Amino acid sequence: MNALPSAIIDALRAVLGPENATLHEPRFQGHEQRYVQDCIASTFVSSVGAYVDRFERELADYTGARRAVAVVNGTAALQIALQLAGVEAKDEVIVPALTFVATANAVHYLGAVPHFADSAKNTLGLDPTALRDWLGATAERSGDAWRNRHTGRRLRALVPMHTFGHPCDLNALLSVAHDYRLTLVEDAAESLGSRYHSRHTGTFGRLGTLSFNGNKIITTGGGGAILTDDKHLADHAKHLSTTAKVPHRWDYMHDEIGYNFRMPNINAALGCAQLEQLPKFLASKRRLAARYREAFAGLEQASLMQEPQGCESNYWLQTLILDEAAADQRDAILTATNDAGLMTRPAWTLMHQLPPYRDFPLAPLPMAESLARRLINLPSSAGLA
Amino acid sequence: MNALPSAIIDALRAVLGPENATLHEPRFQGHEQRYVQDCIASTFVSSVGAYVDRFERELADYTGARRAVAVVNGTAALQIALQLAGVEAKDEVIVPALTFVATANAVHYLGAVPHFADSAKNTLGLDPTALRDWLGATAERSGDAWRNRHTGRRLRALVPMHTFGHPCDLNALLSVAHDYRLTLVEDAAESLGSRYHSRHTGTFGRLGTLSFNGNKIITTGGGGAILTDDKHLADHAKHLSTTAKVPHRWDYMHDEIGYNFRMPNINAALGCAQLEQLPKFLASKRRLAARYREAFAGLEQASLMQEPQGCESNYWLQTLILDEAAADQRDAILTATNDAGLMTRPAWTLMHQLPPYRDFPLAPLPMAESLARRLINLPSSAGLA
Ligand SMILES: Cc1ncc(COP(=O)(O)O)c(C=O)c1O
Ligand SMILES: Cc1ncc(COP(=O)(O)O)c(C=O)c1O
Repeated sequence: MNALPSAIIDALRAVLGPENATLHEPRFQGHEQRYVQDCIASTFVSSVGAYVDRFERELADYTGARRAVAVVNGTAALQIALQLAGVEAKDEVIVPALTFVATANAVHYLGAVPHFADSAKNTLGLDPTALRDWLGATAERSGDAWRNRHTGRRLRALVPMHTFGHPCDLNALLSVAHDYRLTLVEDAAESLGSRYHSRHTGTFGRLGTLSFNGNKIITTGGGGAILTDDKHLADHAKHLSTTAKVPHRWDYMHDEIGYNFRMPNINAALGCAQLEQLPKFLASKRRLAARYREAFAGLEQASLMQEPQGCESNYWLQTLILDEAAADQRDAILTATNDAGLMTRPAWTLMHQLPPYRDFPLAPLPMAESLARRLINLPSSAGLA
Repeated sequence: MNALPSAIIDALRAVLGPENATLHEPRFQGHEQRYVQDCIASTFVSSVGAYVDRFERELADYTGARRAVAVVNGTAALQIALQLAGVEAKDEVIVPALTFVATANAVHYLGAVPHFADSAKNTLGLDPTALRDWLGATAERSGDAWRNRHTGRRLRALVPMHTFGHPCDLNALLSVAHDYRLTLVEDAAESLGSRYHSRHTGTFGRLGTLSFNGNKIITTGGGGAILTDDKHLADHAKHLSTTAKVPHRWDYMHDEIGYNFRMPNINAALGCAQLEQLPKFLASKRRLAARYREAFAGLEQASLMQEPQGCESNYWLQTLILDEAAADQRDAILTATNDAGLMTRPAWTLMHQLPPYRDFPLAPLPMAESLARRLINLPSSAGLA
């Protein structure tokens, strides 16, 4: 075996010991069993129930958002948030090329068009400087809105995503959004517990969204939430996610086309217990980051992703970034580590390289393309350190 | 109080005793706690897990469908089933006017157009005779397909729904579907356990869908399933419901635009336990139907819905149908029974009377409109008899 892969395995073993390690697995050592049992005993396992209300309240308290609306997953949260941000069919929505496919899909479900933008090296999230340059060359004013001068479509929203939990440069992105009249919606699926200048991610945009999928820092089995400070938007999000049924003692009247996107109470019960564990998970992940830093300190050809300046990251997925010169060893490293029982993973295929999104509008993507060739996620579960 | 409402309360009390009764509540007296605890202990609560596989296998066994694909709810099941049936944007899909809004919404999510049709008195589901007459006057052949001659849109699919668990006239509907080249997709959300000529509902169409919402005969908190005898369609349904990710050791590649519609394992664990209880629930509901029949036998102005000839209904929701002459007492009956702690409910607002569906294509709907004025669902939980 080549030197770099085996050096990486050694560094991982120094932290993780001889055991196999998955990329990220959930941990249920709090009140998970108790709350779920209580939920089943109450018979309220489904769309109405005390755990949903409690989970929403506690999420709002924790993040500092005025309101949180629990939904069936992070993808559904994004779809509703974008709709409430005013995204309409044929609008363009700027999303990172370096993201999980759900960010682009949610735009597409509304009949709108994702427009892919580049990432910054220091955050792995949307690069505000590159975006401003790109919009300067691409956007043209038309009345109150800005349009893509090549496609003629209205540019409607901007969706930064906090990659692997690292907050992107929200202040600079808010300024771009302001100048081009783009509504900012944060895809905070990966960044529960991450703060930008002490304020929780997902609370800077008009709306923000979370995911509680099984691979996230806390899980509800499947789940998501919409965060917003606007009470009317929150009420509307709740309405849309519960089939837009108008409250009535017995009538079934729906005043618009809604969705069945509510989070079941049994999943919220799990979520309430997980949220209690979140501070522990965050501390463990921060310890793991420090231990990886120590173990990888001697490695010349790669560096570990660290939280951006002024930010506190949840370190959801620990990330090694190979130097350009070592990029061609990425697949050898992935093979060697996975063969050794140490699960690692490259970046997602960039959005504009996925078959369904090949012919969509895009900015130049030099950094996203470079990162995609060099980035490797390391075993990251809470409890590993 | 007026005579009819109080006669109905007396009849209900004769069956239900002095206690309050909800319309339908779930019952967890089997292995629900055990399976869910086991699921949490395994840490596989989310998108992959043994309970999802088992639930799918057991659903297929129980219904006789070759394959079942578990998804996040019945609405998502319908959306995927319709997409796989070939429904495309701007197609028209025939659905009953008398249904829960999800049937129409699923069509709309695909950019297609619901076209509302009438119900039959004996089944409460689509009336095949009226539908054939309507299509005779409305559909015109164009190449391989049939179009709505008024809108010019292609007629693509037919979605019968088995109302309150009573199977509709599938053979006659299959014949209409055949003659007009409509793909039949059954919305069997309410009819798990119901059979038409001994064969399970949901297995007659090219695809069929189930719901395990909290108000259904069995529940997973939130959940649904797609049934089909076509292995390729089943595999495709699984693929679409799991973000269309192509299996790979580490790459994240999606070859089409999919959805996050998978059922979490923790919900499937609940489902496995509930499915074991289904025969008991069916027996109890059948007993309840018999006891209501006895108690309401003396009532002149209304009759109880009975399973259609040749069918075995799950009697999911017990249904009283007022005579035309008593229709104007419906609201008084709803008020009196609900005030007495006996939860009753009218039919859903008909689809064409909902604000978002007001200007959609529709057949004459005399029976749906008549039924909607006269129908009352009675307390129906398993365990009441
Ligand atoms: C960046 C990003 N956006 C959106 C989602 C969608 O969340 P979910 O899987 O809960 O639908 C995820 C997680 O899967 C994600 O990582
Ligand atoms: C007729 C009908 N179709 C579809 C659905 C949708 O199912 P779900 O609520 O699981 O999305 C339901 C139940 O709510 C229903 O009654």
